[in-house]
Amino acid sequence: MKRILFILTATLSAQVTTDDLKRAAPSDWLHYSGQYHSQRHSLLRQVDTANVKHLVPAWIYNIRGARRLESVPIVADGVMYVSQTDEVYALDARTGRLVWDWRHSNPLQRGPNRGVALFGNKVYIGTSDAKLVALDARNGSVVWTAKLAEAADGYWCPVAPLIVNGKVIIGIAPGDHGLNGFLDAYDAQTGERLWRWNSIPGPGEPGHETWPGDSWKTGGGNTWLTGSFDPELNLIYWGTGNPAPDFDGDVRKGDNLYTESMIALDANSGKMKWYFQFTPWDVHDWDAVEIPVLVDAPYQGVTRKLLVQANRNGYYYVLDRVSGKFLHGTPFINKLNWASGLTKEGRPIRVPGIVPTVQGVKTCPSTSGATNWMSPAYNPDTGLFYVVAREGCGINTKSRDTFRPGGFPFMATGYTESPADPWQNYVRALDLTTGKLRWEYKQTGVKLYGAGLLSTAGNLLFAGDDQGEFTALDARDGKELWHFNTGQQITASPVTYGVKGKQYVAIAAGSNVVAFALHE
Amino acid sequence: MKRILFILTATLSAQVTTDDLKRAAPSDWLHYSGQYHSQRHSLLRQVDTANVKHLVPAWIYNIRGARRLESVPIVADGVMYVSQTDEVYALDARTGRLVWDWRHSNPLQRGPNRGVALFGNKVYIGTSDAKLVALDARNGSVVWTAKLAEAADGYWCPVAPLIVNGKVIIGIAPGDHGLNGFLDAYDAQTGERLWRWNSIPGPGEPGHETWPGDSWKTGGGNTWLTGSFDPELNLIYWGTGNPAPDFDGDVRKGDNLYTESMIALDANSGKMKWYFQFTPWDVHDWDAVEIPVLVDAPYQGVTRKLLVQANRNGYYYVLDRVSGKFLHGTPFINKLNWASGLTKEGRPIRVPGIVPTVQGVKTCPSTSGATNWMSPAYNPDTGLFYVVAREGCGINTKSRDTFRPGGFPFMATGYTESPADPWQNYVRALDLTTGKLRWEYKQTGVKLYGAGLLSTAGNLLFAGDDQGEFTALDARDGKELWHFNTGQQITASPVTYGVKGKQYVAIAAGSNVVAFALHE
Repeated sequence: MKRILFILTATLSAQVTTDDLKRAAPSDWLHYSGQYHSQRHSLLRQVDTANVKHLVPAWIYNIRGARRLESVPIVADGVMYVSQTDEVYALDARTGRLVWDWRHSNPLQRGPNRGVALFGNKVYIGTSDAKLVALDARNGSVVWTAKLAEAADGYWCPVAPLIVNGKVIIGIAPGDHGLNGFLDAYDAQTGERLWRWNSIPGPGEPGHETWPGDSWKTGGGNTWLTGSFDPELNLIYWGTGNPAPDFDGDVRKGDNLYTESMIALDANSGKMKWYFQFTPWDVHDWDAVEIPVLVDAPYQGVTRKLLVQANRNGYYYVLDRVSGKFLHGTPFINKLNWASGLTKEGRPIRVPGIVPTVQGVKTCPSTSGATNWMSPAYNPDTGLFYVVAREGCGINTKSRDTFRPGGFPFMATGYTESPADPWQNYVRALDLTTGKLRWEYKQTGVKLYGAGLLSTAGNLLFAGDDQGEFTALDARDGKELWHFNTGQQITASPVTYGVKGKQYVAIAAGSNVVAFALHE
Repeated sequence: MKRILFILTATLSAQVTTDDLKRAAPSDWLHYSGQYHSQRHSLLRQVDTANVKHLVPAWIYNIRGARRLESVPIVADGVMYVSQTDEVYALDARTGRLVWDWRHSNPLQRGPNRGVALFGNKVYIGTSDAKLVALDARNGSVVWTAKLAEAADGYWCPVAPLIVNGKVIIGIAPGDHGLNGFLDAYDAQTGERLWRWNSIPGPGEPGHETWPGDSWKTGGGNTWLTGSFDPELNLIYWGTGNPAPDFDGDVRKGDNLYTESMIALDANSGKMKWYFQFTPWDVHDWDAVEIPVLVDAPYQGVTRKLLVQANRNGYYYVLDRVSGKFLHGTPFINKLNWASGLTKEGRPIRVPGIVPTVQGVKTCPSTSGATNWMSPAYNPDTGLFYVVAREGCGINTKSRDTFRPGGFPFMATGYTESPADPWQNYVRALDLTTGKLRWEYKQTGVKLYGAGLLSTAGNLLFAGDDQGEFTALDARDGKELWHFNTGQQITASPVTYGVKGKQYVAIAAGSNVVAFALHE
């Protein structure tokens, strides 16, 4: 059979329902983080610790012009939807053949894009000119476009949307430009905006008192990474980014709510049920957008609805996700010099002097973070939470900056790598409720970026790194079982899915999407 | 074992001798075309028609910034040397790990580069500013640099050098700028130029009479693809390119020697032993640089030293390579309208009116050629010559152009694809001495470019195409046995080699070099 005769194995009418999104069948990968609880743990077990050595590339799809994809593919019924900035590609998930592509004509092309969402017969993507676009999943034609914010102000949208009860939930970027964040809900059918939650409370609103003078107007607090959802509680959990200006806290003395927080919003109304602020008055650009992972597990003898997060500030947090109550927090990195611990309410106890100066102050973890956008994972069989942890410090400096509208950085200077404390990434396995280190795996690569994790019922943990290595570890002890060098820096998170009885593991590596399967 | 502990499996002192180059051990790939006879047929047979279905990617190396590599890797003692324009990468051929790289600082960056050559402890590369550079094979440091021509005039060197008896043989580009070609020999140790053969004879030299007036001064005739060598005859065979201006033959009425020719040069002196001109007075830009393949085979009952070439003009030629005598010629494409046949001396019988006009004239094959730089192969077991053949026509136009020094096209207009005769590539297997079609395989992809072929003793023929498909065919009947989509356009030629008892097949695909091996 010639390749040109290949028939697409999949139907192209996805018809993804709310029940489908709740169930998240293992053969699909329907959410940015796999399931609403964002555990990134797949029940597929065809590939396991015994046979993973037979995992080989099944196909490669090159996205021309892409440099360093951060996109997580969405897979439904044998079709993969993968994005880069302002572009969507629908691929036959078995062969990598292009079904359709869509390119948004937009000279801005601010990147990256982290992925699409799927609901009904539509594919949803945020664009670099701050729009939300709904495409027909069958052919990539535009169904509707909603404006999220003024692109001319400097807003753009790298966020993979989250579909909740027929609504498209989507955040915005960048807080580093002094633009205030929000979280929006749009009607998935019509594109009508149903609610908006603003990160920075205005005059008269609770929390406004944490901003002196007019500083709230340029407070930042963006929402640039996808959150989680608890269908029973009907609560959306979403992390918020740093306050602006990033490194000069003198002009915004106060807690700067609701930056650097986990927020729980009622999915119907967008009203905030609770918040927990990880880093009040952050001066180190430690966005708290890291994926909230929802687990129901025994905590001190009682099964509770937990929300855990490994935060860019270096602490691992265990919260009660019904109330937002802080239960436990502990560092997951060794090099941490900015806080001596957490109060019993979870508030950091600051070490005096670890704030940026004009000359520069050594700060651990660095601003690139103890972790960052790279997705964590949780395996209910091992009870371990997996995170890409970065050891190392930065030299953080500050200046006095003036806000300018139109998309200019409002950071008040920045950071460099501390020569004495170079950055090194590890995959670390933490006990879910205590955060204690169970094992670690040292990764290759020392650059600014990292890649996310995938857990599977085959007791595997998949990880990538910026030297192009894609690696399978034993989820129980971190032993390396398999690796393949994809040839390009990996800064995305892997997914797994099944087509016609075969399990695939796929990841974006540089400009390529590579899908692996067992060699027959 | 962690990946960072990998030890390079190879020695880094190549010490390739003249005997090594003559022998061309199957575990190495020492020449652009594999061996001096350019058959591109490897005696490696670990991968064969029965097990090729178990061929999987072993590693991928990404050359950052590369777009469409045309480079053929050179492999010696487990180290692969692969190039793009003004850059060389030495890789562990077993793992794809970088050993060293070299980048030539040169703002011109005219591409492509088709590969390096290896001799002694040195790696040789032509640069886009028309230099020949010798690098230390152990670390990539520059040993010497020789100037081939004036880069400011517009010259550049995409040619993979050929090493002959301690000399570096290298050609030049581009004839399309009205710059006259030559073939040079440099002392491999010192970089001293030993001889130069000029494509266009000057006043008083034989062949000068084929150029009216001053037209010889801008005659073109470049040497941009690597030739072959017969150690017994001590003859170098090299094809020459088109005359300039390409499409306006009115200003250069005559045969335009030695453009569009196969030339045989004495390797010691560079003196021309014979020439055979395929297309006298070419007006279709049908460079005759296609690889000359040397075969000793029975011809009409007598074993002769043959040279065969599938020419861009659509004819397959069989020559006696001792004398240059034309033995046989026949079209290897169906769409050919410019000649009604060949005389018994091999000269084309022109069809009147198939010359470019201002309005445009349909010309078959098109200027992109019945074939082009993509390498052919010959399998002595099947007795078949394999070529990537392109069916289709162009609309060729002309204008009056004026030569300008400094690297400006001197083409006198060009060609477009004929809408009624779109281009389609085939892998075709021809009987060596009759040129009769034995089988054909239709490739995917219809663009300007094509990829070369590799024959192996496992009765396999490897081919690539511009949709990224890398394919293994049964050399006997053209049946497709295996394919893998590399995700990027393939415009290079594959190679094979062995490391530690394992056979690898490697090819540059887009910006990647991908090496395949049997899955264990």
